[in-house]
Amino acid sequence: MTEILVVNPNSTEAVTEAIDRAAAPFRMADGPEIRAATNRSGPPGIQSQGDADGVVPHLREMAAEGGADALVLACFSDPGLHVLREDTGKPVVGIAEAGLLTALTLGERVGVLAILARSVPRHLRYVRQMGLGARFAGDRPVDLEVVELSDPVRTRARLLETGRDLRDRDGADVLVLGCAGMADQRAALSQALGMPVVEPVQAAIGMAVASVMRGW
Amino acid sequence: MTEILVVNPNSTEAVTEAIDRAAAPFRMADGPEIRAATNRSGPPGIQSQGDADGVVPHLREMAAEGGADALVLACFSDPGLHVLREDTGKPVVGIAEAGLLTALTLGERVGVLAILARSVPRHLRYVRQMGLGARFAGDRPVDLEVVELSDPVRTRARLLETGRDLRDRDGADVLVLGCAGMADQRAALSQALGMPVVEPVQAAIGMAVASVMRGW
Amino acid sequence: MTEILVVNPNSTEAVTEAIDRAAAPFRMADGPEIRAATNRSGPPGIQSQGDADGVVPHLREMAAEGGADALVLACFSDPGLHVLREDTGKPVVGIAEAGLLTALTLGERVGVLAILARSVPRHLRYVRQMGLGARFAGDRPVDLEVVELSDPVRTRARLLETGRDLRDRDGADVLVLGCAGMADQRAALSQALGMPVVEPVQAAIGMAVASVMRGW
Amino acid sequence: MTEILVVNPNSTEAVTEAIDRAAAPFRMADGPEIRAATNRSGPPGIQSQGDADGVVPHLREMAAEGGADALVLACFSDPGLHVLREDTGKPVVGIAEAGLLTALTLGERVGVLAILARSVPRHLRYVRQMGLGARFAGDRPVDLEVVELSDPVRTRARLLETGRDLRDRDGADVLVLGCAGMADQRAALSQALGMPVVEPVQAAIGMAVASVMRGW
Amino acid sequence: MTEILVVNPNSTEAVTEAIDRAAAPFRMADGPEIRAATNRSGPPGIQSQGDADGVVPHLREMAAEGGADALVLACFSDPGLHVLREDTGKPVVGIAEAGLLTALTLGERVGVLAILARSVPRHLRYVRQMGLGARFAGDRPVDLEVVELSDPVRTRARLLETGRDLRDRDGADVLVLGCAGMADQRAALSQALGMPVVEPVQAAIGMAVASVMRGW
Amino acid sequence: MTEILVVNPNSTEAVTEAIDRAAAPFRMADGPEIRAATNRSGPPGIQSQGDADGVVPHLREMAAEGGADALVLACFSDPGLHVLREDTGKPVVGIAEAGLLTALTLGERVGVLAILARSVPRHLRYVRQMGLGARFAGDRPVDLEVVELSDPVRTRARLLETGRDLRDRDGADVLVLGCAGMADQRAALSQALGMPVVEPVQAAIGMAVASVMRGW
Repeated sequence: MTEILVVNPNSTEAVTEAIDRAAAPFRMADGPEIRAATNRSGPPGIQSQGDADGVVPHLREMAAEGGADALVLACFSDPGLHVLREDTGKPVVGIAEAGLLTALTLGERVGVLAILARSVPRHLRYVRQMGLGARFAGDRPVDLEVVELSDPVRTRARLLETGRDLRDRDGADVLVLGCAGMADQRAALSQALGMPVVEPVQAAIGMAVASVMRGW
Repeated sequence: MTEILVVNPNSTEAVTEAIDRAAAPFRMADGPEIRAATNRSGPPGIQSQGDADGVVPHLREMAAEGGADALVLACFSDPGLHVLREDTGKPVVGIAEAGLLTALTLGERVGVLAILARSVPRHLRYVRQMGLGARFAGDRPVDLEVVELSDPVRTRARLLETGRDLRDRDGADVLVLGCAGMADQRAALSQALGMPVVEPVQAAIGMAVASVMRGW
Repeated sequence: MTEILVVNPNSTEAVTEAIDRAAAPFRMADGPEIRAATNRSGPPGIQSQGDADGVVPHLREMAAEGGADALVLACFSDPGLHVLREDTGKPVVGIAEAGLLTALTLGERVGVLAILARSVPRHLRYVRQMGLGARFAGDRPVDLEVVELSDPVRTRARLLETGRDLRDRDGADVLVLGCAGMADQRAALSQALGMPVVEPVQAAIGMAVASVMRGW
Repeated sequence: MTEILVVNPNSTEAVTEAIDRAAAPFRMADGPEIRAATNRSGPPGIQSQGDADGVVPHLREMAAEGGADALVLACFSDPGLHVLREDTGKPVVGIAEAGLLTALTLGERVGVLAILARSVPRHLRYVRQMGLGARFAGDRPVDLEVVELSDPVRTRARLLETGRDLRDRDGADVLVLGCAGMADQRAALSQALGMPVVEPVQAAIGMAVASVMRGW
Repeated sequence: MTEILVVNPNSTEAVTEAIDRAAAPFRMADGPEIRAATNRSGPPGIQSQGDADGVVPHLREMAAEGGADALVLACFSDPGLHVLREDTGKPVVGIAEAGLLTALTLGERVGVLAILARSVPRHLRYVRQMGLGARFAGDRPVDLEVVELSDPVRTRARLLETGRDLRDRDGADVLVLGCAGMADQRAALSQALGMPVVEPVQAAIGMAVASVMRGW
Repeated sequence: MTEILVVNPNSTEAVTEAIDRAAAPFRMADGPEIRAATNRSGPPGIQSQGDADGVVPHLREMAAEGGADALVLACFSDPGLHVLREDTGKPVVGIAEAGLLTALTLGERVGVLAILARSVPRHLRYVRQMGLGARFAGDRPVDLEVVELSDPVRTRARLLETGRDLRDRDGADVLVLGCAGMADQRAALSQALGMPVVEPVQAAIGMAVASVMRGW
């Protein structure tokens, strides 16, 4: 029996629960077990560069403990992605990387829905680091605190408004949700905007499942 | 029960059989059925631009017939990828696209092992079309006719030699096999070169399975 | 006596006639003959990816029949450009390629006036395939059916409006008409917008004439 | 009667004569007159940045005098290209720009045969300025003084050797001669290397002829 | 005692005085002397490509006369940058190059405040020549004649308005003043926009001082 | 009196001493004080991704303690660069960023001399993150452990050999030393290779001095 560990780098259990729900469609009788875990030492949400860099030591500890066959890093900054690959030698899938790569198969120009304005420069650096600038339309913040995401109506309205800007001003034809806890919003947003929307946790779990199955 | 149809655009049954073997690790009791099919109207191998463009009508017919939930296009030129997406409205995964995207998660600079020199310009256009030039190290031919791939010893020797050039001259740190029928070579080549090697059919089937599971 | 065959990939004779008129300034006493031909098997306009891919077999047949010294492909998707080069070994000029390259000599950032929104992703892939992203400002649709182009007033108004968006929102300083049948609109549009506008059929015929003259 | 003025920015008459010979195939009974002129105030060859910048005032004077309908700038550094466009408001074609754009229609990755090593950084800046890095394979010097080009055997040997390096080490599949006076070498070099070779003066005159014909 | 010569390529003494004031913070007891000089042969402002190219001979003469250890070129077109490096073999710092490189350390996407619309294409070519397209947000003109810069209130209003467009429409998160004489505006503009603003003369003098200190 | 703190992220005092020597030319009577400090909690050298990520918490502590006006991060991975900028709100200069930007003013294509092969992927990600791929020639390891750098003869020989590869195989025309402790090697290497070589600690200190002087 193989196992995939999905780590929520922040300490908010509600986010871990949302991640766990997002994993449901990937659970099969003879497929890998998928387990979501909370970084209890983390901040309630990853907002600043300090938050992102600050959880790296926690994630390295969690990865060292667990005997999982693959790891999913469920924060859109992919904190510690490369060090975890180096540390574990196992497949480590970051949700930003997975979300962006999946978006490339669904549209030509990718827009990212960031939670906060202060995350945008971090995302811009990451898109460039991945070498995906030629497919990138823009990154716009919905300007919601991570904890505010518990209000689904307010969240949906802001996602829709920001998605329209990415589509109409920046020329995006596919969007990526730039946060781990919004899987429940994906379908409605996609339908309202008339364009594919990628939920990055599902994108990442799918890649981790595929990776564990193929065995390399 | 969902189904993934893996189409071999050429008419060589041995290639279809190799594709079918490559699909084995992805078959689960409650997962999608995975079926490989041969394009009997196709040429024995896709070598020229004429071969690639020539099979597009066949592939459109095969896609129209089948009631599959997702399609895998098992030729490294991804012939007809975008028209099949338009025609079917379903997930269509090309092995070149899937192989290259998977490689991005395993290394920094991707090298492609083409079968024939005449395929290289086609691959170069495709890598640029995907917008992945910033992660691309090079594309070198092993210079084997597609039918010659039946000689595994000769194939392995040429793959190894060409892979060394991609690594040492072009600076690749991850390779993609630029052909559908070489899954059996992957592990040995990876070990001999000391770097990850992507088998694109497995990369593509994994993506199709994940796509069918997540349902968007 | 040398001959240049200008193929209209769609079946609309009015478009072929407009192409023929656009060829007039290139006809010289001792220069190459320039002949426009209609793809009678084609759809009335190339709108979808299916239309573009669907005419490739027709174009290969037309090229095989004709004994022309050079071929111009008069559809802004350049369908079959590379296979026709492979098939014929002669100069084949696509109007999209020629239009974009000509625009590079007239401005810094190129905007494309597409006919339909559904052509935009196809154009985006093509601009990337050509490796011209660094000079590309945007691609916006005038949202007219190809057959609607027979109404010149409506066409002009939409071209002007869309051209203004490309100039003022996307920062284009040179435009390319993204369709074969609009040569009559070029001059007025250029004057109204105060910027160069490239008519791609003339750009392509000019390149074909130059190619036939120089003999390589 | 229209006229195209082809300016040789250096003072070497033999180069002007070679340019004049290169223009021969473009002379038609009812086509534009094509006249080659020497910059008598220029250095014998454009080798340094100082040479390139130094001839700009001369070229502006020559352009101001002549009543030509279009100008070809026959030095591979395209000195003064943009100021001449601004000054004259007429089509001005630089042989580097024209040579590189023409190469894009003949291959995927362009190699440039520079005369001297000290020209290479200048060429690199120009290729970047044109935004063509995605199609650029490399720029290698044949290391011949401009005046040495009078020895055709030595020139041919060095062109062939350098062309092989561009093809085999840098992955070029089309070459551009990085100098105005080598039209006589083009065909043999292309045949010996088995790949297209662009002679930039002919590429530029062809573009100027096409531009004058279409009238915009 | 080492000396840095800061050349104002235009003939407007008020600009030279503003440059001299901008140099003040870099003057240290045992540091290099910094001297500002006016190109008395230049036009009152560098506006056209003709202005930029026209001052290159003057600048070469000024550089040849002076015995300075490093040169700063105080015009945002960096006219003659590479020929001055070739001529002198000493550090030559252009304010556009220095301003753009400094901006890369202060934000992710750089916006340039041009004085005039006609300078924008020149700037676009330069940003591409530097290979910085991946970090470039846009270049917008404040549409003021260089001599109008003497009205600080009008200047400030237009800078603020244009800066807002660069920030809100183009996604810039750092700005560069695209002119030599606006050092006095920097701090207020930065504060009003809430983002870093680079004054390119100070950026360049700082680089020249550092270069002279380190001695290579 | 202003102060610049130059932090050596590794615990090797000899490296800190070399950094201190490299700072000497920047010390002026009325200029900023420049102080080098060792991260006593760090590993003897930053070799792995784990080393780079592992020192970030130490560096944040050192920055929080010190009252310096600007910080130089003297490790070629620039560990924690963005979080230190966020934490302190002061100028923070990373030696990789400063070294690469300085190289852009000295040549067209930058080669990096890495210490170890395992650092190369990290450097490649960083060059892409900076958006400098268009100016990047390659990154090759000298394959010396950081502590081996104490043998200057062995170090010089390997630097020279690797620099030749970067120049002759990768087309670099300017090099950057990819490590903090090799200032003493710079001049000789530059002379032996006939091309500029950037010592990144001096490049960074120069930028920090300039930044403190200009006050923004």
